[in-house]
Amino acid sequence: MDSPQTPDALPPRHETRLRVRYAETDQMGVVYYANYYVWMELGRVELVRSLGMIYKDLEEHEGLFLAVIESSCRYLRPARYDQEIIVETEVANTTHRIVEFTYRIRSVNPEQVLAEGATKHMWLDRAWRPAKLPDRYLDVLQSTIKAST
Amino acid sequence: MDSPQTPDALPPRHETRLRVRYAETDQMGVVYYANYYVWMELGRVELVRSLGMIYKDLEEHEGLFLAVIESSCRYLRPARYDQEIIVETEVANTTHRIVEFTYRIRSVNPEQVLAEGATKHMWLDRAWRPAKLPDRYLDVLQSTIKAST
Amino acid sequence: MDSPQTPDALPPRHETRLRVRYAETDQMGVVYYANYYVWMELGRVELVRSLGMIYKDLEEHEGLFLAVIESSCRYLRPARYDQEIIVETEVANTTHRIVEFTYRIRSVNPEQVLAEGATKHMWLDRAWRPAKLPDRYLDVLQSTIKAST
Amino acid sequence: MDSPQTPDALPPRHETRLRVRYAETDQMGVVYYANYYVWMELGRVELVRSLGMIYKDLEEHEGLFLAVIESSCRYLRPARYDQEIIVETEVANTTHRIVEFTYRIRSVNPEQVLAEGATKHMWLDRAWRPAKLPDRYLDVLQSTIKAST
Repeated sequence: MDSPQTPDALPPRHETRLRVRYAETDQMGVVYYANYYVWMELGRVELVRSLGMIYKDLEEHEGLFLAVIESSCRYLRPARYDQEIIVETEVANTTHRIVEFTYRIRSVNPEQVLAEGATKHMWLDRAWRPAKLPDRYLDVLQSTIKAST
Repeated sequence: MDSPQTPDALPPRHETRLRVRYAETDQMGVVYYANYYVWMELGRVELVRSLGMIYKDLEEHEGLFLAVIESSCRYLRPARYDQEIIVETEVANTTHRIVEFTYRIRSVNPEQVLAEGATKHMWLDRAWRPAKLPDRYLDVLQSTIKAST
Repeated sequence: MDSPQTPDALPPRHETRLRVRYAETDQMGVVYYANYYVWMELGRVELVRSLGMIYKDLEEHEGLFLAVIESSCRYLRPARYDQEIIVETEVANTTHRIVEFTYRIRSVNPEQVLAEGATKHMWLDRAWRPAKLPDRYLDVLQSTIKAST
Repeated sequence: MDSPQTPDALPPRHETRLRVRYAETDQMGVVYYANYYVWMELGRVELVRSLGMIYKDLEEHEGLFLAVIESSCRYLRPARYDQEIIVETEVANTTHRIVEFTYRIRSVNPEQVLAEGATKHMWLDRAWRPAKLPDRYLDVLQSTIKAST
């Protein structure tokens, strides 16, 4: 008893919902493979928003841009038009310079994992030089990692 | 006789070639309707380039941006994956403030008209205020209209 | 009193909400003009869904496809990254062969109309021949027009 | 001496050229990260075409579809609007079931490597079951690997 880390205390992974658009399908009748990366973007933006950080404000007020330096995806099952999709997003690692997100993309009906992905980013300033994320933001991002260990 | 403007003397409409990408199709097996507008963008950029104006330089050096204010398209036949496509582009009208382009989108094989479109644009400055295109550029754009009458 | 058609009795135009994706912006810092047509697609799919018709089922079970034959848009104000957007969609006209939708695209904050658009469609069968929408579906679509007059 | 396979005899990596579209940029002023995967698609389609295989015909006549099961990209430098881009594509590995491509994405001016990527695919039949690529196609794909070792 008194477990300091009961499962209930853990923040769930952040979940973003979307519905597959016709524009996102291709003539194989499934979602075109590059579009999963658009969904990952939605996932990380909403994760960041859920932490009280608005990515748009980081760009406009802090002059910080999150440039993608690596991305990857494994496709397990095809996503189809009109399906409801959940993007689970997690901060996998973060420093003042770097953030890594991991993603699990699921369909709601049937309940299945469709894909797993990862992206790695670095912070840039307005002049496209490497920049450091201020501590107050870093703390917020890191808190989600501690919470999930 | 001795017409100063024989048909043969007319500059042909500007033609841009492209090949349909898989990403541009949807699950009906044809090109998604919004993508014709991407092709029109390619057509007008290449038309402008063919006149010795680089749209990118207008943005970077003149601080002029061409904002779309109207667009339209009539779809006659579907475009399909891997087809070679020709976008014919014409300056239909232009002033210091406004440019209108018209487009005819054809497949090469079979030789057919697939769609016809139009876009209307206004010039903006960096602060997003209406701007005037300098005379030297306007003259170039207008010359293409005179030539085709 | 007892007006058979009080404004309150009218079904509101159908509204679909979305948030502007980073992928939808371009380097002018606003939404690329072709993407408004993707939003119109979301609007009409959701309108049709709100009437109890699932467009996906029309494709799969009835073998009916809604091919776009005309589209147009007037852009009044730019849409920006991360804005919440409402797409109002209306059936403007419909027969067994043809459906026309009109759209008004608004931002929530500030509350402004950003664009107005229209699309015209014809029904096709699996062999891409013109098809007739069965009465039971047509009645549903037409009911939304009567309701709004 | 008299090596039957001098470097000069090697087929160069397959190169596909394209020009960055405005639609492909985002508000950071560079190409949106998912669009590199669209360029990889162009690269592998053109590589396959250069070998005398038309991917479109594989779909239509052989009933074979190349489903992506993994993709990845490392972004080294941003690609910008209107740049000329070269996609170098190589068959990294192939069996009857699987094909792996690797890509190097370069800008022409300045001459720089912008990104490196990889995709892994499996062959499916029309019913979405794993399928085997006929020998005559496999031989062609494998010949490009032998040639480059």
